Amino acid sequence: MDCIFCKIVNKEIRSYMIYEDEFTVAFLDINPVSHGHTLVVPKKHFMNMEEIPSDELCHVIEAVKKVGGALKKTFDFDSYNIQVNNGATAGQVIEHLHFHVIPRHIGDGLELWPQGKYEEGIPEELTNILRKELGQE
Amino acid sequence: MDCIFCKIVNKEIRSYMIYEDEFTVAFLDINPVSHGHTLVVPKKHFMNMEEIPSDELCHVIEAVKKVGGALKKTFDFDSYNIQVNNGATAGQVIEHLHFHVIPRHIGDGLELWPQGKYEEGIPEELTNILRKELGQE
Repeated sequence: MDCIFCKIVNKEIRSYMIYEDEFTVAFLDINPVSHGHTLVVPKKHFMNMEEIPSDELCHVIEAVKKVGGALKKTFDFDSYNIQVNNGATAGQVIEHLHFHVIPRHIGDGLELWPQGKYEEGIPEELTNILRKELGQE
Repeated sequence: MDCIFCKIVNKEIRSYMIYEDEFTVAFLDINPVSHGHTLVVPKKHFMNMEEIPSDELCHVIEAVKKVGGALKKTFDFDSYNIQVNNGATAGQVIEHLHFHVIPRHIGDGLELWPQGKYEEGIPEELTNILRKELGQE
């Protein structure tokens, strides 16, 4: 399969790999949003959140927790963002699921997306539809 | 404990709850970045990624997967972002760990953060330090 992350996992191409276990690897993003920006990926090729089974997903989020903790401890900052761009419209470029871990610093200028408001009645409507879809009650 | 998300979990205050299982709940963000923007939280109070144990964290990411799938299926879009603001500098306001699930649509104007470049030698240096911290080799 012609997937750059699979090639990194298999050491067919070089990466700045900082962590590896049975199920996951983590390596520096070479176009970092901030110093230490790391990608955590499952070793097996899953395109997205829909494809990855729950047990594999657990391994990935555990690795994210480890990497985030190590980044905080090593570089003495207190906060980071985790981000997954699940699908092209969400900004996913490499079609191999990956979790971004992005160290944050006061005054770094990175802004969260603007928040809005629902019109009256809309949240109730969404809630009813989604509860049904999710098998609630 | 005076935590608004604990009160939502305990049904002491109203929310637009779309999902509940033994370990997690999910409810609409009332200040949504996009239509259907949902928060997934562990029922137990953990402040952040550092406090939550791995097994509880697995339950949360499994619920994120379920909620993301239901949102996609219900509202017919193909992509979403998952975001965790872990710590105040990363934008965390409520001190009870929560995962944002944000539906995305073409032309919605939400931009990812700008990417940079490392100066020569820096990624090697970071990799060495982090591999040691993460017990690699």
